[in-house]
Amino acid sequence: MSSPLVSYSDLVSATAHDVRAAIRTGAYSGHTAGLAAGKLQCNLAILPERYALDFLRFCQRNPKPCPLVGVGDTGNPMLPTLGADIDIRTDVPKYRVFRDGTLSDEVTDITPVWADDLVTVALGCSFTFENALLRHNIPVRHIEDAKNVPMFRSSIALSPAGPFGGQMVVTMRPIPLAQIDQARAISAKFPQAHGAPIAIGDPHAIGITDLSQPDWGDAVDIKDGEIPVFWACGVTPQNVLLDAGLPVCITHSPGHMLIADVAEDAETTILNHD
Amino acid sequence: MSSPLVSYSDLVSATAHDVRAAIRTGAYSGHTAGLAAGKLQCNLAILPERYALDFLRFCQRNPKPCPLVGVGDTGNPMLPTLGADIDIRTDVPKYRVFRDGTLSDEVTDITPVWADDLVTVALGCSFTFENALLRHNIPVRHIEDAKNVPMFRSSIALSPAGPFGGQMVVTMRPIPLAQIDQARAISAKFPQAHGAPIAIGDPHAIGITDLSQPDWGDAVDIKDGEIPVFWACGVTPQNVLLDAGLPVCITHSPGHMLIADVAEDAETTILNHD
Repeated sequence: MSSPLVSYSDLVSATAHDVRAAIRTGAYSGHTAGLAAGKLQCNLAILPERYALDFLRFCQRNPKPCPLVGVGDTGNPMLPTLGADIDIRTDVPKYRVFRDGTLSDEVTDITPVWADDLVTVALGCSFTFENALLRHNIPVRHIEDAKNVPMFRSSIALSPAGPFGGQMVVTMRPIPLAQIDQARAISAKFPQAHGAPIAIGDPHAIGITDLSQPDWGDAVDIKDGEIPVFWACGVTPQNVLLDAGLPVCITHSPGHMLIADVAEDAETTILNHD
Repeated sequence: MSSPLVSYSDLVSATAHDVRAAIRTGAYSGHTAGLAAGKLQCNLAILPERYALDFLRFCQRNPKPCPLVGVGDTGNPMLPTLGADIDIRTDVPKYRVFRDGTLSDEVTDITPVWADDLVTVALGCSFTFENALLRHNIPVRHIEDAKNVPMFRSSIALSPAGPFGGQMVVTMRPIPLAQIDQARAISAKFPQAHGAPIAIGDPHAIGITDLSQPDWGDAVDIKDGEIPVFWACGVTPQNVLLDAGLPVCITHSPGHMLIADVAEDAETTILNHD
């Protein structure tokens, strides 16, 4: 890389465009939580065109785990509806490349893997509603404790499409009983970011046996007076893609998201070029 | 038809399922405005699979005129995410069949036209937010006057996808100045039904020269103290489909919508089968 490396703290006040520029040059390859405050961050799924129609149907049928916020043209790495000059081959800090359902590589640039038949799908992410919860002084335990959010395979059936289906992955955040209604109302305002909780209270009701043993991420404490609240999780589509065993698919690495120019509270996720 | 014909007034208190049943048997083929109160009504676009990926991309990129609420499997006429036992071949009161971009037929049953490569796309419709405006005592002039809503070709560019693009069609409703903020806030709550207005006030700003000459529907009076308010219109995708000159595509006839079992104020447009 010709550019000097930059640290997370160098980017804390940078615009979305400037963060992407630092990522593109290779100067930054870290996580994106808290960067470009107020801008939509996105989960990423890149897959061959022959699977794209079924995958879009799958996302449409499962809008809480898979909120569609952007779709690229086949073979075109640019995403003009999400931001100016976004090149999906270089503008995400870290990618995972899967072949036949198995992790093949973790890289910071997918230019060598890009192909004329690939379609980019961007999906909303939980950072959006977590930021809103924090602004309203609702605690987000894994952020307080500097951990990854705990994620669990649930028994909630997804609505299938083609080779895509299975069960929903959910995140859990302990919320004080008195703030649950407020947390529900706040997150419901962000349908592009998983929306309202999918379940509140009893984990067994959605097939989770032990909250201290998440399937991904870290366990967090549930304090006296707090209730476990479950939201649909963006790991769901990644899992579903893996289970489908596509010859190739590419996702972001956890926490290393695409940062869009779209405001996270905009009416739609389509950038207004006016 | 073996079943006796039923009239609009016979169906005013019927459930969505019962209205669809009357339509399916051929007993009812009229408009659906005001039927199955509280249930989502849908614009319809049926097209060959080879155009479906681009059309879904087009809808994703233009969510205000084209709010995606349901997508069928290729060749499968059932739409389980929108309602129990919906058969799209028979459950809409009237259809328009287009061939090579020209109206070929208007029919009440598309079973003879259905084919293994067809994909059904359902899009939200303005009835949803009009009902909400009326509940809040905001006048809806064309309903007061028993007319069709006035529709205009605007100069607002659509975000293209494949063969689909052009300019947005908009509807116009005169709203008293004092109620405009409320009308905006109410309609913004229904992103699955065109959402907030796309323009307020000057028609010339969006390329409309004469409000007394709508391109479709009927002109309506604008009274003293009222401002023309423009919303994205579901005729947009129909126009775009026609302009693309597909060998075959099928839409509903204006006002003759698919009635879903989904509540029009549900968090998502996916029926909860729990």
